[in-house]
Amino acid sequence: MSSTNALDVLIQALRRLPGVGVKSAQRMAFHLLQHDRPGALALSRALEEAVGSVHHCTLCHTFTEAEVCGTCLDPERDATRLCVVETPADQSALERTGAFKGLYFVLMGRLSPLDGIGPKEIGLQKLMERATNGVVQEVILATNFNAEGEATAHVISEALKSRGLHVTRLARGVPVGSELEYVDLGTIAHALVDRR
Amino acid sequence: MSSTNALDVLIQALRRLPGVGVKSAQRMAFHLLQHDRPGALALSRALEEAVGSVHHCTLCHTFTEAEVCGTCLDPERDATRLCVVETPADQSALERTGAFKGLYFVLMGRLSPLDGIGPKEIGLQKLMERATNGVVQEVILATNFNAEGEATAHVISEALKSRGLHVTRLARGVPVGSELEYVDLGTIAHALVDRR
Repeated sequence: MSSTNALDVLIQALRRLPGVGVKSAQRMAFHLLQHDRPGALALSRALEEAVGSVHHCTLCHTFTEAEVCGTCLDPERDATRLCVVETPADQSALERTGAFKGLYFVLMGRLSPLDGIGPKEIGLQKLMERATNGVVQEVILATNFNAEGEATAHVISEALKSRGLHVTRLARGVPVGSELEYVDLGTIAHALVDRR
Repeated sequence: MSSTNALDVLIQALRRLPGVGVKSAQRMAFHLLQHDRPGALALSRALEEAVGSVHHCTLCHTFTEAEVCGTCLDPERDATRLCVVETPADQSALERTGAFKGLYFVLMGRLSPLDGIGPKEIGLQKLMERATNGVVQEVILATNFNAEGEATAHVISEALKSRGLHVTRLARGVPVGSELEYVDLGTIAHALVDRR
């Protein structure tokens, strides 16, 4: 795209963002430099600031700037229920439902041995300590319903059950608002098995 | 996504990138903070560096860190031909063909009155001065072949022709390697009119 070194460095740096290839990176660099230099500087500062100040909550593992995140500190929440999610975005989705008042444990990933993500990377040990603190009575597994999420749920479930904890999983079934004709067969089969 | 302010600021800053919505921004922020903090810092520095050092070539308007870009300074190039492109990426595409040895003028955009991009924003005055410097004999318009690119080419063409310059446009026609059956009708019609 260019004969300038700083621009090439910027394009290479933008390519490290997930889902950004060389064409997108060029378009982003062009846009920032041509139309939004204040935006580029704001992004630069935001990145530096976030890397410097954001780390993991010592209790639930999610991103926070404090030692312990706001959710974990909230005295209103039901500490007897612990919901295990993969990412802060998943936690946020659960929060928006307003249907859960317990606490969370955020794995910050999922088991994926091929990518080198094992029990240690998802903080399984920390989760064990948290779940066996004598307060937690039920652990709700809310990992994704794809192959890796299911495997993660299975591993955590086995480990927790062996310590005598009550472990549940989000219900599988037909999504709200959908018509049976268009729901995939695996989902219908699961909904049938889990009927109530 | 989070209870941390620095993270929210980062997500908002990432959303200013073209083609990045709130979900992508969250995914990017999560990826950088969880898996690639060195990448985040590298991007931060690259942005700051690029904003500080990259500006426009005084001759051809493209991005450069020097006063005049490398292409404009190259004594090997044919200064009698000036190719007008919309962006540095377009210039790069032309360069990779190896078929053009002249110089460039990069508009850094295209006419788009609805977006407030008029003749001034694309540097039409600068292009006029450059094209009428007594050396340039032919101006080749290589703006895109969409509505805005064609309109831009038309405006520039009229302005240059009124000063007696020889103005050409990239040929429209059937792309190399394509089969007529699958080429759109507008392209075939143009190829027929411009047959040689």
